[in-house]
Amino acid sequence: MLQYALLHLAGYDSVQEDDLKNFRQWQSRTPGHPENFETPGVEVTTGPLGQGIANAVGLALAEKHLAARFNKPDNEIVDHYTYTILGDGCQMEGVANEACSLAGHWGLGKLIAFYDDNHISIDGDTEIAFTENVEERFKGLGWHVIWVKNGNTGYDEIRAAIKEAKAVKDKPTLIKVTTTIGYGSPNKANSYSVHGSALGAKEVDATRKNLAWPHEPFHVPEDVKRHWSHHVQQGAALEVEWNAKFAEYEKKYKDEAAELKLIITGEPPAGWEKALPTYTPESPADATRNLSQQNLNALVKVLPGFLGGSADLASSNMTLLKMYGNFQKDTPEERNLRFGVREHGMGAICNGIAHHSPGLIPYCATFFVFTDYMRAAIRMSALSQAGVIYVMTHDSIGLGEDGPTHQPIEHLASLRAMPNVFMLRPADGNETAGAYKVAILNRNTPSIIALSRQKLPQLPGTSIEGVEKGGYIISDNSSGNNPDIILIGTGSELEIAAKAADELRKGGKAVRVVSLVSWELFDNQSDAYKESVLPSGVSARVSIEAGSTFGWEKIVGSKGKAIGIDRFGASAPAGRLYKEFGLTPEAVVAAAKFLC
Amino acid sequence: MLQYALLHLAGYDSVQEDDLKNFRQWQSRTPGHPENFETPGVEVTTGPLGQGIANAVGLALAEKHLAARFNKPDNEIVDHYTYTILGDGCQMEGVANEACSLAGHWGLGKLIAFYDDNHISIDGDTEIAFTENVEERFKGLGWHVIWVKNGNTGYDEIRAAIKEAKAVKDKPTLIKVTTTIGYGSPNKANSYSVHGSALGAKEVDATRKNLAWPHEPFHVPEDVKRHWSHHVQQGAALEVEWNAKFAEYEKKYKDEAAELKLIITGEPPAGWEKALPTYTPESPADATRNLSQQNLNALVKVLPGFLGGSADLASSNMTLLKMYGNFQKDTPEERNLRFGVREHGMGAICNGIAHHSPGLIPYCATFFVFTDYMRAAIRMSALSQAGVIYVMTHDSIGLGEDGPTHQPIEHLASLRAMPNVFMLRPADGNETAGAYKVAILNRNTPSIIALSRQKLPQLPGTSIEGVEKGGYIISDNSSGNNPDIILIGTGSELEIAAKAADELRKGGKAVRVVSLVSWELFDNQSDAYKESVLPSGVSARVSIEAGSTFGWEKIVGSKGKAIGIDRFGASAPAGRLYKEFGLTPEAVVAAAKFLC
Repeated sequence: MLQYALLHLAGYDSVQEDDLKNFRQWQSRTPGHPENFETPGVEVTTGPLGQGIANAVGLALAEKHLAARFNKPDNEIVDHYTYTILGDGCQMEGVANEACSLAGHWGLGKLIAFYDDNHISIDGDTEIAFTENVEERFKGLGWHVIWVKNGNTGYDEIRAAIKEAKAVKDKPTLIKVTTTIGYGSPNKANSYSVHGSALGAKEVDATRKNLAWPHEPFHVPEDVKRHWSHHVQQGAALEVEWNAKFAEYEKKYKDEAAELKLIITGEPPAGWEKALPTYTPESPADATRNLSQQNLNALVKVLPGFLGGSADLASSNMTLLKMYGNFQKDTPEERNLRFGVREHGMGAICNGIAHHSPGLIPYCATFFVFTDYMRAAIRMSALSQAGVIYVMTHDSIGLGEDGPTHQPIEHLASLRAMPNVFMLRPADGNETAGAYKVAILNRNTPSIIALSRQKLPQLPGTSIEGVEKGGYIISDNSSGNNPDIILIGTGSELEIAAKAADELRKGGKAVRVVSLVSWELFDNQSDAYKESVLPSGVSARVSIEAGSTFGWEKIVGSKGKAIGIDRFGASAPAGRLYKEFGLTPEAVVAAAKFLC
Repeated sequence: MLQYALLHLAGYDSVQEDDLKNFRQWQSRTPGHPENFETPGVEVTTGPLGQGIANAVGLALAEKHLAARFNKPDNEIVDHYTYTILGDGCQMEGVANEACSLAGHWGLGKLIAFYDDNHISIDGDTEIAFTENVEERFKGLGWHVIWVKNGNTGYDEIRAAIKEAKAVKDKPTLIKVTTTIGYGSPNKANSYSVHGSALGAKEVDATRKNLAWPHEPFHVPEDVKRHWSHHVQQGAALEVEWNAKFAEYEKKYKDEAAELKLIITGEPPAGWEKALPTYTPESPADATRNLSQQNLNALVKVLPGFLGGSADLASSNMTLLKMYGNFQKDTPEERNLRFGVREHGMGAICNGIAHHSPGLIPYCATFFVFTDYMRAAIRMSALSQAGVIYVMTHDSIGLGEDGPTHQPIEHLASLRAMPNVFMLRPADGNETAGAYKVAILNRNTPSIIALSRQKLPQLPGTSIEGVEKGGYIISDNSSGNNPDIILIGTGSELEIAAKAADELRKGGKAVRVVSLVSWELFDNQSDAYKESVLPSGVSARVSIEAGSTFGWEKIVGSKGKAIGIDRFGASAPAGRLYKEFGLTPEAVVAAAKFLC
């Protein structure tokens, strides 16, 4: 509610008095937790604890990076602070510690975090579960720490702290502000009962009396209005000033200005998609993680806002941008981000980067199974419409020896079930390029690209255009949209489906092979197109995918057969695992013969 | 590999020389990452970073709790240290910080963690992403910290550090041991190339020469064997000693001994299930989160190893055990655990508690949507066969005003897809009791119980026995296993299905209503039983569930209709949301009429 009240006072049209009265109602601009896609003025969606501080690290990283690339000695066109507030609950979340450790490492001097130290969380006094020394921890994380002891009315202290924080340029600053939750309420202040519940009419009255506040509910007194209206004028003046500064910049630094404009507007440079590599069946077999790296390195040449990295697996995820060095404290103009083993922080930081400027396109990488570590951040990408690209390698039991802790099983299904996510599982080079095309074009939807550790052949029939439709035919020897059987595969198992088709065709069968690289994209196609790929009259269908069969009934129907893995994996060479788990052309052929 | 070598040297039958040679091979006892269910001597499954240290916190908590409950001035029957090793990667993970903050808060003085400070992670020198001051952070977390500067050969220093750690009884200890990764290898030591790859024959030779190690591969020289064999004897002697101590204890403290035995063996006390509450349709409507609390408070009276708590939402999740106080530093005999806002740490700590003793039954709670924060820990419960109970309230858009960040949509589907998990969504009191019965009985499978914030009526036809089968008929006016239509619901939507059935029956239809409270349990039933509930001849089926329809095609078939929510939720009162999202008896009736 506080955030909405501030937006209202600060003159945002998006939050009128009626919006405040509509708090938490259907289709209001003031939902229970602020959402960036509902309310102009809200920069990131918050709610789940710890996400906000990690987003702020991403926002501050974006500023530091863009400033380093675009600022000139005579024109600092990128120059802003990132302010954030976090509470005791946020401080307890691991994701906050991950992101703050990176903020310290990167020396994000323009990040200023207010820690609302009110000693109350939902369960009551933080004494029951949170007695660590936060200041000492943050000093250990490389932050500058200031303590404002009277956060309720110590305005001068707060101003002085901000001034001090700005003066410290090589470290982020945590301003610990000790406050009383529910300040002003004579009977409920300093108790958990004001955390998530309304005060109630009686206590509201008592609070009004206590604070000597005689005004009607929702009424903003004239002097308050007048005071806040300065901000509107000040903001407008700053915008005019910045526009003039940019006009200057544009005159003097034409190329840089054009590039910065692309980043600010999010418009993709003309013809960028020509950079995507293509392949023929004669191109060498390769792991899709390697093909992914070809795409990353091709895209960074044409997309000015493209940057990213891995959670300590750059050489396994194949995510290094060869033209660039590492984004570090003293080299912030570089584009390789080194997140360390901090998957959750990585995802939430990338959300912040994506929300900083529409043309910033962050990617982040780890093993596919570790989407589990960062799932809350992935969901925030999806909900808050951040087009983060998740480069997820080692995407099945195909990773082999590392065993079941490292082998995704349920992950494809679990992410297909999440709204506003493109879950892509390319089979070879053309499909990997197609996956990146989809990911780059959809700036309001995160894409998760599942990539193989093992080598895969370049298959005849695959294409970028096919991937854009989510599902498409890669080979067919039937006529009249009426094959004897349809074999459906994704990613590394598309090759197995293709091999099984060859075998069945030798036996005289009319066989169609379909690549179902993204279920969501396929769902978005017209009924006519879907019917042309998976005709409803053909119930003989076999799917193969090295993952849970959960959800595949939708594709193969109740008469079809889904081949997959509905148990945890095992540690052994990949080839052995495929055989033991029955993921073979022979198994597909046998299932197909049973059906047609 | 090191862990297997140590087990081998320590005389564990489970790891013979042949097992070592079979490292990372199909069905070997030496998989790529140690698994507790594959290799006796491995206490917890490790691999994903940060889980081990959090498990260790759980193991140490279990010891402190049991010691406080069972030790007597003349007989300290529970008395052991918990040792764990963590590396730079673990230190970066948020889950480790969460768990270590709790370890400090709880004063787990018998937890001793060795931090292998080798400055190398997979991406190379930790300088690129990890420059925080770990010692300072741990001091802030309330730990005692010791630094052993020569971890490669400083055996006396290490011994002294352990002695010092044991002397500090009110704080856990971190022993930072600075080491050289690949110590002894003349060309690869201190580089990331030894992190996950073998040295190679040439470098192995060079290392042997450098360390003056003349023996054949896998050969253990006699003097080494002799030295280690002391441990076997020593261990056997300690066991004899402890058994004698327990015999003494049993004589003197009969009741306590009987209780401790149940915890050590995991045998449930006779007749425990009689404690489960039951309900009739006349019992008052209630939120299943409240009914859950009735179960928790009933179970804790009959299950000596039952304990748990919430991630700062005890009063929302309704998880407080009223007979008990809080497990705290100075009251470790109590059973309410206060995890603070640390979902991931909570799950991993519960895995440690469950693996400490088969009769310890930990439960943990948060909002269902925040399973995303702790998904990696849930997967470890499932993989490592820890029967943790996940009490997940606020299980759908039914939570209302908090909005989409707090409303689960894809979570049911995503957890149904995970192997070895019981995902239970009870509809009322009897089903909630049934869910707890399943959860308690299955000690090698975690149960996730999704519970409502909103009131639900006690439905006719629900039962504990029904829940044990996963899916069952709650009402039917058809005969001959041939209804006109089958309506299928789960949790809070079972009521809607029942109302729709009433309406359809008024119109003369033969309608069956099925509760599908757990898909996994239903899958486990015989084909005959499944056919008796969902006869294959009846294709007219409508399901209703306030969540993603992903996966429901398996149940309703390609001719049926799944009613659900395939987008993010919204902030509004629950009743309004149900209407806007079309989750109403009218929608079910309309879909049914279309089909039959």
